[in-house]
Amino acid sequence: MTLQTRQTMQLSIPEGMIDLGVGQPSVSLLPLEIIKQAADHRLKQADPSFLAYGKESGCGCFRAVLAEFLTDGYQIPVDADDLFITCGATNSLDLICTFFARPGDTIFVEEPTYFLALRIFQARLLNVVSIPADENGLIIEALEEQLTHHSPAFVYSIPTFHNPSGATLPADRREKLVRLGEKHQFFIVADEVYQLLAYTSSPPPPMMAFDRQGTVLSVSSFTKILAPGLRLGWIQASPKLISRLTQSGLLASSGGLNPFTSAMVRSVIELGLLGKHLDFLKNTYTERARALSNALHEYLSDIFQFREPEGGFFIWGHLQGKIDTEHIRQQALKHQVHFQPGHRFSATESLKNHLRLSFSYYDAEALEEGVRRLKAVITGC
Amino acid sequence: MTLQTRQTMQLSIPEGMIDLGVGQPSVSLLPLEIIKQAADHRLKQADPSFLAYGKESGCGCFRAVLAEFLTDGYQIPVDADDLFITCGATNSLDLICTFFARPGDTIFVEEPTYFLALRIFQARLLNVVSIPADENGLIIEALEEQLTHHSPAFVYSIPTFHNPSGATLPADRREKLVRLGEKHQFFIVADEVYQLLAYTSSPPPPMMAFDRQGTVLSVSSFTKILAPGLRLGWIQASPKLISRLTQSGLLASSGGLNPFTSAMVRSVIELGLLGKHLDFLKNTYTERARALSNALHEYLSDIFQFREPEGGFFIWGHLQGKIDTEHIRQQALKHQVHFQPGHRFSATESLKNHLRLSFSYYDAEALEEGVRRLKAVITGC
Repeated sequence: MTLQTRQTMQLSIPEGMIDLGVGQPSVSLLPLEIIKQAADHRLKQADPSFLAYGKESGCGCFRAVLAEFLTDGYQIPVDADDLFITCGATNSLDLICTFFARPGDTIFVEEPTYFLALRIFQARLLNVVSIPADENGLIIEALEEQLTHHSPAFVYSIPTFHNPSGATLPADRREKLVRLGEKHQFFIVADEVYQLLAYTSSPPPPMMAFDRQGTVLSVSSFTKILAPGLRLGWIQASPKLISRLTQSGLLASSGGLNPFTSAMVRSVIELGLLGKHLDFLKNTYTERARALSNALHEYLSDIFQFREPEGGFFIWGHLQGKIDTEHIRQQALKHQVHFQPGHRFSATESLKNHLRLSFSYYDAEALEEGVRRLKAVITGC
Repeated sequence: MTLQTRQTMQLSIPEGMIDLGVGQPSVSLLPLEIIKQAADHRLKQADPSFLAYGKESGCGCFRAVLAEFLTDGYQIPVDADDLFITCGATNSLDLICTFFARPGDTIFVEEPTYFLALRIFQARLLNVVSIPADENGLIIEALEEQLTHHSPAFVYSIPTFHNPSGATLPADRREKLVRLGEKHQFFIVADEVYQLLAYTSSPPPPMMAFDRQGTVLSVSSFTKILAPGLRLGWIQASPKLISRLTQSGLLASSGGLNPFTSAMVRSVIELGLLGKHLDFLKNTYTERARALSNALHEYLSDIFQFREPEGGFFIWGHLQGKIDTEHIRQQALKHQVHFQPGHRFSATESLKNHLRLSFSYYDAEALEEGVRRLKAVITGC
C-alpha cells in the first residue's frame, strides 16, 4: 500500500498551494473535543440499543432533540415526525432521486447550481434542465416558461446562501415556487445546508415554512454545522413523503441509515455543544468572509465583480470581458492558487467568466495571500 | 411524538412473542463495552482527520488493519487496495446495482435467496431471474442453461452459510461460477457476511480467492461480526472495479461513506477486540444453533426436514406435504411464535412449504420454547 493510499481524508492539497476552491471547514475547525465529550456521555450509559438495526426514520429520541434544535434555529416549529435521518446531503439527494423521480425523468436546477449535485443527478440518469437565476436566486417567470415545455419530477434549489452564488431566495419567490409545485405536481427539493450559517443578514424561513400540501423536501446535514466525517444529515418533509423512504426496499434489510453516529450527535445536542459550536463557526466564518471580501476589494476591484457574502461558504463573481476562468484556473495552478471555475456550476457549460471562491478553509492571512496570487495570475493572463 | 415513534430500534417484537424470523443478534450480544474502549482509544489521540470528508475508498489506515484482519480470518491474502468501505451490505448492494448494472438489466439470484436483497434489486429496477440451488448451493448446470436465454449483469450469490438455506458452495462450484462469469462477461456479487461465522465446518475460501480477471465483487460487513447499528461494511474487488465506485458521482461531493465509524472500528481492530468478540459470538451461536437443532429433532422430527446448521444464523427446512407456511405463519402469531415463511425467499413465489428459523436472537431456552409453540401450531393446523 502506497503512502497516498494510506491517507484518511478526501482532500489532498499540494504543499504551498492555496486552494480557494475547497468548500470545507479547515482541519482546525473540526470538533474533536466535542465529539469526545459526546461519546463519553453516550457510551457511559448502559443502553446499547443504537448498536442494533435502527428505526427506519432514525432514532426517535435523536429526531426529537434535532427537531427542538431546528425549531430554535429555523424559528419555525419543526416536528420530529417530519424528519428522516440520512448519511448526509449526498445520501439524501440520492434517495430523493430514487424515490421521487425515475431514471429518464426531467428535473430542473438553477443556473448556476451546485456542481457536485449535477453528478448525483447524472448517476441517477436524470435529465437536467437549467432555469436562470438572478441576484435573488431562481427566476420564477423563467421557471414558469420552462413548465410549458417540461413536466419535471422536482426542482432542485439552494434557496439560502446559494452554492455558488450566495443568493438567497426572498419569501415571495419561495411562496410562488411552492404554489407552482402544487399546481404542476412537482416536488421542491431544497438544499438548505447553509440555512443556519447566516452572518450579516437573516434569511427567510426554510422552504418547509411554505409547504401546504406536502410538496417540499428539505435536505440538510451536520456537515457544515458540526463535521463532514460524521456523514449524518436529514430530510425534512411531510410524513406522507417520509413514508416513501421508510417503506423503501433500500431500508428494509438495514433499517435506519446511521444509528451509531446519531447516538453520538444526540449527546452533542443534549449537552448544548451544537449551539455553542455553531456560534463559534459563525464568528469564524464571518471574519473569514470579511477578510476575503476585503482582499478582493483591495486587489481585484477593477476586474472582478462579486456579491458581498452574507452567509454560507462562498463568494461568486465574474471577471469583466470574455475571459474563460477555466483557462485562468490552469494558469493559477502554476502560481500555487486555485478556485472553482464558473462552467462547473452550469448544466449547459455556460458561466465561463465566473468563478467561485471559498472562505471556509483558510484563515484571513491565507485568504489575502490567495487573492494576491490570483491577481498576479489574472493580470498576467 | 407518540411512544412508538420515539423508539430507537428497527425491531419491535410484541411482548411475549418469540420471533424466530429475526435474523439479528440479541441486544445482550451488542458490544457496548468494546465500542466504549475503542472510542476512548481513538478520541484521546490528537488527530481529528476522521471528522473531515474521508478518502473515497475509505481511510487508508483503516483499510490496512481490516485487510490484515481478513487475511487472518479468510486464510487468503487480502490487499487493502482491494477494499472499499461502505455503510454496510445493503449500501454495498445498492452501489453495485447502480455501477455494475443499469435499470432494466437482468440479474440472476439463487432460489432460495435473501428476501430483502430482492427488495434492493426491485428498488433499482432490475429484472430478477432465479437459478435453482440444491444442498450445495447454486446449481451450475442450471445457471449455464439460463445463460442461453439471458445475459445477466451479475449473479447474486450467498456462497457460504446461505441465508436462508445454510448451504455452502463447494470450491469446485465456486471455480466454475467465476470461470462462467469470465466467459459470459457477468459479475459475481458474493454476499459473504457469514464467511467468518463458521461453527461446525470450515467453508472454502471466499469468492475472491477464485477471481482471476476482476469479475468478483465480495460484499461483507461488521453487522454480523460486531454490531448492525454501526452501518459499516466493505466491498472487496480488484482495484479496477473499485475505481468505478471511487470515481462515481455519488461520492464526489461527500467522499468516503463512513469515516467517523471507520475510525472507531479501526481502534476495535487495533486493540484486538474484534477477534475476541468474534470468538465470543461463534461460541454463543454454536450453542444456540445446537439448541434449536435439538429442539427441532425433539419436537418436529416427523414433519419438518431441515439441514443441520454449520454456520451463519439460520435453519431452513420444509414441512411434509402441501402445506403453505404463510398460512401457518398467520396461525403462529396467535400462538406467540413467528418465523419467515418460505415464499419470501423465492423470486417466483415458490418454496411455499419451506420456512426459515433463526437462532441468533434468542438463547437456548427461548429457542426450545419457540419450537414447542411451533409444534402446537403445525400439529393444530
